[in-house]
Amino acid sequence: MEAYAIIRKKRDGERLSPEEISWFIDRYVAGEVADYQAAAWLMAAYLRGLDAGETLALTEALARSGEQVDLSGIRGVKVDKHSTGGVGDKTTLVLAPLLAAAGAKVAKMSGRGLGHTGGTIDKLEAIPGFRTAMEREEFVAQVNRTGVAVAAQTEKIVPADRKLYALRDVTATVDSIPLIAASVMAKKLACGADVIVLDVKTGSGAFMQDAAAAQELARLMVAIGKRAGRRVVALVTDMDQPLGYAVGNAIEVAEAIATLKGRGPLDLTELCLELGSRALCLGGLAVSLKTARARLEELLLGGQALGKFREWVAAQGGDPRVVDEPELLPQAPQKIPVLSPRAGYVVQINALAVGEAARALGAGRRRKEEGVDPAVGVLLVAKTGSRVEAGEPLAYILAREKGVAEAQELLAGAFTVAVNPPKTRPLVCAVVEK
Amino acid sequence: MEAYAIIRKKRDGERLSPEEISWFIDRYVAGEVADYQAAAWLMAAYLRGLDAGETLALTEALARSGEQVDLSGIRGVKVDKHSTGGVGDKTTLVLAPLLAAAGAKVAKMSGRGLGHTGGTIDKLEAIPGFRTAMEREEFVAQVNRTGVAVAAQTEKIVPADRKLYALRDVTATVDSIPLIAASVMAKKLACGADVIVLDVKTGSGAFMQDAAAAQELARLMVAIGKRAGRRVVALVTDMDQPLGYAVGNAIEVAEAIATLKGRGPLDLTELCLELGSRALCLGGLAVSLKTARARLEELLLGGQALGKFREWVAAQGGDPRVVDEPELLPQAPQKIPVLSPRAGYVVQINALAVGEAARALGAGRRRKEEGVDPAVGVLLVAKTGSRVEAGEPLAYILAREKGVAEAQELLAGAFTVAVNPPKTRPLVCAVVEK
Repeated sequence: MEAYAIIRKKRDGERLSPEEISWFIDRYVAGEVADYQAAAWLMAAYLRGLDAGETLALTEALARSGEQVDLSGIRGVKVDKHSTGGVGDKTTLVLAPLLAAAGAKVAKMSGRGLGHTGGTIDKLEAIPGFRTAMEREEFVAQVNRTGVAVAAQTEKIVPADRKLYALRDVTATVDSIPLIAASVMAKKLACGADVIVLDVKTGSGAFMQDAAAAQELARLMVAIGKRAGRRVVALVTDMDQPLGYAVGNAIEVAEAIATLKGRGPLDLTELCLELGSRALCLGGLAVSLKTARARLEELLLGGQALGKFREWVAAQGGDPRVVDEPELLPQAPQKIPVLSPRAGYVVQINALAVGEAARALGAGRRRKEEGVDPAVGVLLVAKTGSRVEAGEPLAYILAREKGVAEAQELLAGAFTVAVNPPKTRPLVCAVVEK
Repeated sequence: MEAYAIIRKKRDGERLSPEEISWFIDRYVAGEVADYQAAAWLMAAYLRGLDAGETLALTEALARSGEQVDLSGIRGVKVDKHSTGGVGDKTTLVLAPLLAAAGAKVAKMSGRGLGHTGGTIDKLEAIPGFRTAMEREEFVAQVNRTGVAVAAQTEKIVPADRKLYALRDVTATVDSIPLIAASVMAKKLACGADVIVLDVKTGSGAFMQDAAAAQELARLMVAIGKRAGRRVVALVTDMDQPLGYAVGNAIEVAEAIATLKGRGPLDLTELCLELGSRALCLGGLAVSLKTARARLEELLLGGQALGKFREWVAAQGGDPRVVDEPELLPQAPQKIPVLSPRAGYVVQINALAVGEAARALGAGRRRKEEGVDPAVGVLLVAKTGSRVEAGEPLAYILAREKGVAEAQELLAGAFTVAVNPPKTRPLVCAVVEK
């Protein structure tokens, strides 16, 4: 085999064999296929597409490129969850202890991400003392003991994906559905869970703004997972406005805690119940969606999910007092209101603009090397459908010195206030099971 | 401007502005745009295409990347000629002195090429003493004095094209019509001639095997040349069998000399007359194709073209005695016949196979660093349409030690001998003037 012939074949729209894809990826990681050849191949794959079989082969080649986590030491059904990312998405912080309280084993590795706010790992690290770097034995032992662990994904997992992603990032080949599906699912396969619940976001704040594209991505990821022998479901969910009210790191932790106390935002609570009940059914821990949901509601209202969160935080070295004293979380020195210019209904909130505002304040990063400020962010007061008066706050900017003017400008343009209330959008747009 | 945005724009099939293309190429040559970004862009351009305006902008950016030869010191109409390359194509060796004899100024820079045989420069160097490395002043002075000079293209001409071509070569992006057109025309524009005659080959021995693609390439190159203010014509000509009988270096020189004596192969002579008369008319050196052709025939039969060849060879340090004593050219020690297995008509000669045979013997190179052997090659005895008897030679292999078995095998499969004579193919398939 040679790189040239594989590039040419994809260029001409032909189907590559699993052997060809695996050879290409292996040699690329070994440095024998050059970056420029991989770049040409990526563009050909971007424009010509990859079918389900090719995407599966790519996924498996990426997954095989590094360590494949052995979770066989964990007793019970191992559940993993992935979101394609949105603004204010703190679902994992709620869902992980909730599923663990229901008897699932939540063994999740997560990245820091290049989002508007930090990734799940950054959010967890906003809790004083919380450690996300875990040795494999410690990770397995903690899941066995407490039912839940979330660790930072190490360099040893899917190195090929990291290398390829860095190249896609500079060659305009990121937003290809098969390439995204392979990248996400490679990590999921390498991380070893039995049950995988995928949350594919769509709307203004999502990577896949178009609902049809989001569904296509969901279908492809489910197909890959199933062909690799995992139990998988994907929900396509709305990200046209931020999820919940908090967009930042520490404030998202606080909102997740409120949700675990049964006092969270409606949309976040609902999403956790939807994803959670699918996970329980797939894992054989509930006989129907209805019983699964009832069980999860019980665990939220009865305090068991919150107890599990406390236990989890303590297990990873974090200060569990944050549960009762949220003021122990990092606090921003400034709180600046964003006021409504008129009375009416909020008919739209541009989630992307809110995310950009949070990033401007320092909540997110543009480059891997950058840190995030856990304290800053944007706290919405109004959401789509809210009635507001002129001069009332729509949101608060929680800031240190950085980026205030930029955040103000972004947020001033993010809200649309009109005379008539908007049509409501469903939270779950589609359920993809095969 | 940034490379990413330019790649994305082409990826999405949008039209790039001349400024964007020029920025991208300049920065690529400066090493600020990475190879992998150029590779992604090339694949996007390959699959999405470049329109005439984009191709012109690319051509000009490539042409501007290095030295632009100033031919203003040459008095008269400066004529350049380019062939897309074929097997046995020694046209320049005949056409250059023929046009010079007719009063044109032939100032041509040529490459060594990666063909089955050497390029024009390699062929000329088969003449003992012939020098192709020329300083610019010497080049200009020689054209003024003798009417003709052919020099090896230096590294200073179109460095961007060389860099980009090397990348295309390993990323499966060579055979794109706009990319080929830009590459060829950049060299022609940089070399400064007023009149450019293009010979676009089509058929089994051509780079563009398909006649429609060859015509498209011809049209695009003519359009680029005209928009850059040059007088240009392109002929699409047949390369389904080798041109003439000789395929090698020294033997092609010998065949060119025979042609200048009026005793050359019909197809080669005809092609030189066709290209030459177009050049004279475009250059205003003849009032009609008919008078141009009559003048050129006169110069061949009267010996003036041959005299000009002799003068040219001497001017570049070559031994002009080769004109009368072809045995002074390098001779191969072995002459091995390839025999016809049956009686009949030669209905097809696979030009590519003949070329590969010549290369196997050492007449051509696969990598730039390799040298060529001037003495070896393949001398056809029969051409398409020839009547042969069983056991009669179809060709002779002129060899040193190298590649004889491979050449024999290739040539055994190159000839198709059948009962009925073939239909003849026209030599000139199309004339493209706009």
